[in-house]
Amino acid sequence: MKANALPVAIALTTALSTSLLVVSSFDNQAQAQENFRWKMVTSWPKNFPGVGQGPERLAQLVEEMSDGRLTIEVFGAGQLVPGFEVFDAVSDGTAELGHSASYYWKGKAPEAQFFAAVPFGMNAQEMNAWLHFGGGMELWNEVYEPFGVDVMVAGASGVQMGGWYNKEINSIEDLDGLKMRMPGLGGEVMSRMGVAIVNMPGGEIFTSLQSGAIDATEWIGPYNDLAFGLHQAADYYYYPGWHEPTVMFETIVNEEALAELPADLRAILTTAVRDINANVLDEYTARNNDALETLVNEHEVELRRIPDDVLAQAREHSEDVIAELAESSELGTRIYESYRTFQDKVGNYHAISEQAYYNARNPEGDTTQ
Amino acid sequence: MKANALPVAIALTTALSTSLLVVSSFDNQAQAQENFRWKMVTSWPKNFPGVGQGPERLAQLVEEMSDGRLTIEVFGAGQLVPGFEVFDAVSDGTAELGHSASYYWKGKAPEAQFFAAVPFGMNAQEMNAWLHFGGGMELWNEVYEPFGVDVMVAGASGVQMGGWYNKEINSIEDLDGLKMRMPGLGGEVMSRMGVAIVNMPGGEIFTSLQSGAIDATEWIGPYNDLAFGLHQAADYYYYPGWHEPTVMFETIVNEEALAELPADLRAILTTAVRDINANVLDEYTARNNDALETLVNEHEVELRRIPDDVLAQAREHSEDVIAELAESSELGTRIYESYRTFQDKVGNYHAISEQAYYNARNPEGDTTQ
Repeated sequence: MKANALPVAIALTTALSTSLLVVSSFDNQAQAQENFRWKMVTSWPKNFPGVGQGPERLAQLVEEMSDGRLTIEVFGAGQLVPGFEVFDAVSDGTAELGHSASYYWKGKAPEAQFFAAVPFGMNAQEMNAWLHFGGGMELWNEVYEPFGVDVMVAGASGVQMGGWYNKEINSIEDLDGLKMRMPGLGGEVMSRMGVAIVNMPGGEIFTSLQSGAIDATEWIGPYNDLAFGLHQAADYYYYPGWHEPTVMFETIVNEEALAELPADLRAILTTAVRDINANVLDEYTARNNDALETLVNEHEVELRRIPDDVLAQAREHSEDVIAELAESSELGTRIYESYRTFQDKVGNYHAISEQAYYNARNPEGDTTQ
Repeated sequence: MKANALPVAIALTTALSTSLLVVSSFDNQAQAQENFRWKMVTSWPKNFPGVGQGPERLAQLVEEMSDGRLTIEVFGAGQLVPGFEVFDAVSDGTAELGHSASYYWKGKAPEAQFFAAVPFGMNAQEMNAWLHFGGGMELWNEVYEPFGVDVMVAGASGVQMGGWYNKEINSIEDLDGLKMRMPGLGGEVMSRMGVAIVNMPGGEIFTSLQSGAIDATEWIGPYNDLAFGLHQAADYYYYPGWHEPTVMFETIVNEEALAELPADLRAILTTAVRDINANVLDEYTARNNDALETLVNEHEVELRRIPDDVLAQAREHSEDVIAELAESSELGTRIYESYRTFQDKVGNYHAISEQAYYNARNPEGDTTQ
């Protein structure tokens, strides 16, 4: 036995050092047990209710599922990079992950706006169906491909509020000359109705509204709007949010970093993103009405429906704005055709299902005024 | 060197055999690398579109994320146990997992019906908010606790169709004496409007309707109804599905089996279930309208809105049926109060958001008739 002890020891040494790098489970699968420490930059204040909870939950789920092999450090807007530089930071590898909304990148990729919010477009349930079963995700990834960025949908707001105004809007004329913060396609529509559109990250909205730098703003919905204290800076709260029948948030990933993940961690990441995609909407759906009651009952906010003539003109301008975006590039045309075809179909079914059901359950409709 | 070769070899042998059982990642975490081979029984035909795809996707995601440490074999209704014995099979450990709908277990636990479908109750978006952020999941687990079963919500149908009828329903009188398949609380409501309710698993519906054993049935929606060929057995297709503003499907887990999973596999399982919870609804939302067009245009199905007097009476009886269920037990009372309070609140916000938006986007409502 002593004669062959050394070769055995060498063989075992080889096997052992391999076992430090490679895990053999019982059925002989092997995988690199490398650990990954990733950074995630976001466009939201750290730990912000709703949308800001999505990235935190993502980090927690991924750590639990991977038993610590992939950990994610989440940064609020401005902590590592400013809120509007999330896309660049992920593209250049400053951070492996980002959480944001695609209409912030319209300067780089105008077509990205189709995936955040389309005026008079699809709501959250419809968007999720298009993205996952109608080819939407493939098109969205095509938009970001030149930037070395992969994208997954990662949260929805649901139908938003129409926005905060420091005066009553009784007709289309009342919009003329207003300075308003509204991003994306909705902002472009408003600008065609005489509104001067100003863009700024969420964190700057309150002071701008309070100082009079802007006369009106939209943000997300009662839950987030209350957290920002917007009721302290404007009296009138309008609905419905025709400009954002939902916002779909995004998790963006640096393509090279993603390619380095073993298959199981990649599956863990994408499934965790799918979880927060649902969970963020669930949180908004659960919390918005309590916040609305607080706004109306405690803070005496004036809840108003957007006048019919404003809605009608907004719809007309929306058609133009979307058609122009569609014509701006070959990819834009393909996205528009996919989006519009899907919306027509799902809208037809929802007319006799979701919409017909809401109206059967609550025939009086809105009774707040 | 030769002198200590044997002890080294022994030490290495020990280390090596340990490495077959225990994985050491670089930061010295250690976990049992036991593999788990689980069975999942379901109440659906194997690979059935929509609801039947949920369990298949669950198995795939869990295998990918766990790198094969947890695998799930999915059985269609009748392959291991009949569709209506899924709950018993999970409770007694015949299978570790089940996929079904909670109203099938009303004989064992009447309160379970609150979590599947409530007439004139909450739709999918609202139910998900209640279950995940309104205490709903905790109550649902309390209902199943005496049976050693844990539950996670695992799919939604969206607002269903009202059902298939072999004659036109022009008023409440036309329902009198009809034999209909409709499960859960909706069936109880229909029975108070003069309908004789018959229960049967999905797989028996078509032949029962074609043979005249029943005169009417509901199933799920166009996507599944077309797959069952129900248009070959009845001419009239009614909407909206007041009786099932969604069905929420369930993944049930044998409590002892769940307790044996290490924390990472448990997190992998629950996150994968959350994925299919969304994915099943996405599939229905994407597919229902194409199926509806096929039914109406190719198979000349007559699409009809349920008459207002039927809807009004159904709503009244629904209030009674739900109140009686609530009074049947202390737990039922608590579930009802939680459900109703949440519905009132979310309904108020959805009146000015989702409902107001649907009506702003599509002011004509249903134009199919």
